[in-house]
Amino acid sequence: MTRPLAQAQIPVDDRGLAYGDGLFETVLVRDSEPLLWPQHMARLARGCRVLGIPMPASDELDGLPAQAGTGLQVLKLVLTRGSGGRGYLPSSSSAPRLLWQLSRFTPQAQRWETGVRVRHCHLRLGIQPLLAGIKHLNRLENVLARSEWSEPEVAEGLLCDSQGNLIEATCMNLFWQRQGRLETPRLNGCGVAGTLRAGLMERLSVTEVTMGPEVLMEAEAVWLGNSIQGLWPVVRLDAADGVIQRRWTLLDLHRSVQREAHGLLGYPTDCGN
Amino acid sequence: MTRPLAQAQIPVDDRGLAYGDGLFETVLVRDSEPLLWPQHMARLARGCRVLGIPMPASDELDGLPAQAGTGLQVLKLVLTRGSGGRGYLPSSSSAPRLLWQLSRFTPQAQRWETGVRVRHCHLRLGIQPLLAGIKHLNRLENVLARSEWSEPEVAEGLLCDSQGNLIEATCMNLFWQRQGRLETPRLNGCGVAGTLRAGLMERLSVTEVTMGPEVLMEAEAVWLGNSIQGLWPVVRLDAADGVIQRRWTLLDLHRSVQREAHGLLGYPTDCGN
Repeated sequence: MTRPLAQAQIPVDDRGLAYGDGLFETVLVRDSEPLLWPQHMARLARGCRVLGIPMPASDELDGLPAQAGTGLQVLKLVLTRGSGGRGYLPSSSSAPRLLWQLSRFTPQAQRWETGVRVRHCHLRLGIQPLLAGIKHLNRLENVLARSEWSEPEVAEGLLCDSQGNLIEATCMNLFWQRQGRLETPRLNGCGVAGTLRAGLMERLSVTEVTMGPEVLMEAEAVWLGNSIQGLWPVVRLDAADGVIQRRWTLLDLHRSVQREAHGLLGYPTDCGN
Repeated sequence: MTRPLAQAQIPVDDRGLAYGDGLFETVLVRDSEPLLWPQHMARLARGCRVLGIPMPASDELDGLPAQAGTGLQVLKLVLTRGSGGRGYLPSSSSAPRLLWQLSRFTPQAQRWETGVRVRHCHLRLGIQPLLAGIKHLNRLENVLARSEWSEPEVAEGLLCDSQGNLIEATCMNLFWQRQGRLETPRLNGCGVAGTLRAGLMERLSVTEVTMGPEVLMEAEAVWLGNSIQGLWPVVRLDAADGVIQRRWTLLDLHRSVQREAHGLLGYPTDCGN
């Protein structure tokens, strides 16, 4: 059963509400064409396998972006296990519920050009290998982390896990270059494995590493990105208490990785020119 | 805005669905009188403080159990942050949404008498001190843990955290007596601090401890309990692979702690007689 999010209400006994028992995707759609669609579908399928929710038919999913019409939109998909079950125990007969919504979207293009200021968050992500990487509906850690700051000039907050390893930002993945190597945090304990991250890793040599935040002190360049906003160079990093930890000057290196990312999303590939 | 769960649908942009951004309570109600109501309201208030959601007016909450009529019912309350905000960032103007549902309920009285068989789960709970103890809507770990077994003769599954410490069962708190002392896991890193647990700790000397599951091997008696089902003596513990780890014979000790718990819930205080 597919319903547009904006029109629909859902029954309050839906397990997506009761337990966060489901998954979501936010997909950039340009002129009815979804970007990074295979990566989004692969992540959704992986989430379905992890949670034991049947993956909707690809026909049903593939038909949604075409409803967007012209211009830039974000397609939000929510797939829940549906209603039923006894408490936490899912019912084998639950019918999954697929909801979707299209919203007009304008990316924050200025941030592509000037880069962004980010800060460390106090919150440490809990480690749960079973749920790592998938985009499930249990996102209170992200909500609490995003509540740590309100200054509009701080674009994102960086998150470490409970063992002190750097993982991601509240809604973006993190990349850096160090000693000439492009690296990104390994996400086998927590974090969301973004589809832009997946797309970049198919095009560039990106090494997944398990490192504390001090790795950023030695980085030649740092980026944050997701499949909606594209890739933001990081030009300033603050500690959680607001003290500046480091600044970066924008380099050709920043632009060359941005070019690859933006090529995947149909965003400008000549930022900084 | 209060709405009965059973009638209502909720808007799909509700943050409770999108992110599990909210709280719930399940309250035993007998002849329109709620049991452990102060403990439920205290936990809800604590959750509201943690998540930064305004606590509903006590008038509004206190009036709900009276709608139950005669007999035994469970009142389920769901409080979400409501709609709005930009992504994970909550809006300061979001209006919380309070939903509720009353359902007829019959406890599993046989388990009070005979005790129950439980097993260890494979899943390890992630450690997140900010969310520990409160009854929030991010319950995928509980759903996955409860999916680990389907044998009806296994009543519950025990959960350790990612550091190997014993925490709780999938929907119950855990208690044991060891060397004459009543103990329960400390819940400062994960787990739900149950209201029956809170009520028992007000009446009995119960020590919160941080211990691995081996502590159960030395226990004279073990119980599981929550505010809906009451207190179940544990008579058999299996490993996650199904191998029996230990059996317990029902003792007067089991009954005396059960008496205290059931006094709080209006359940029989003479089990085993």
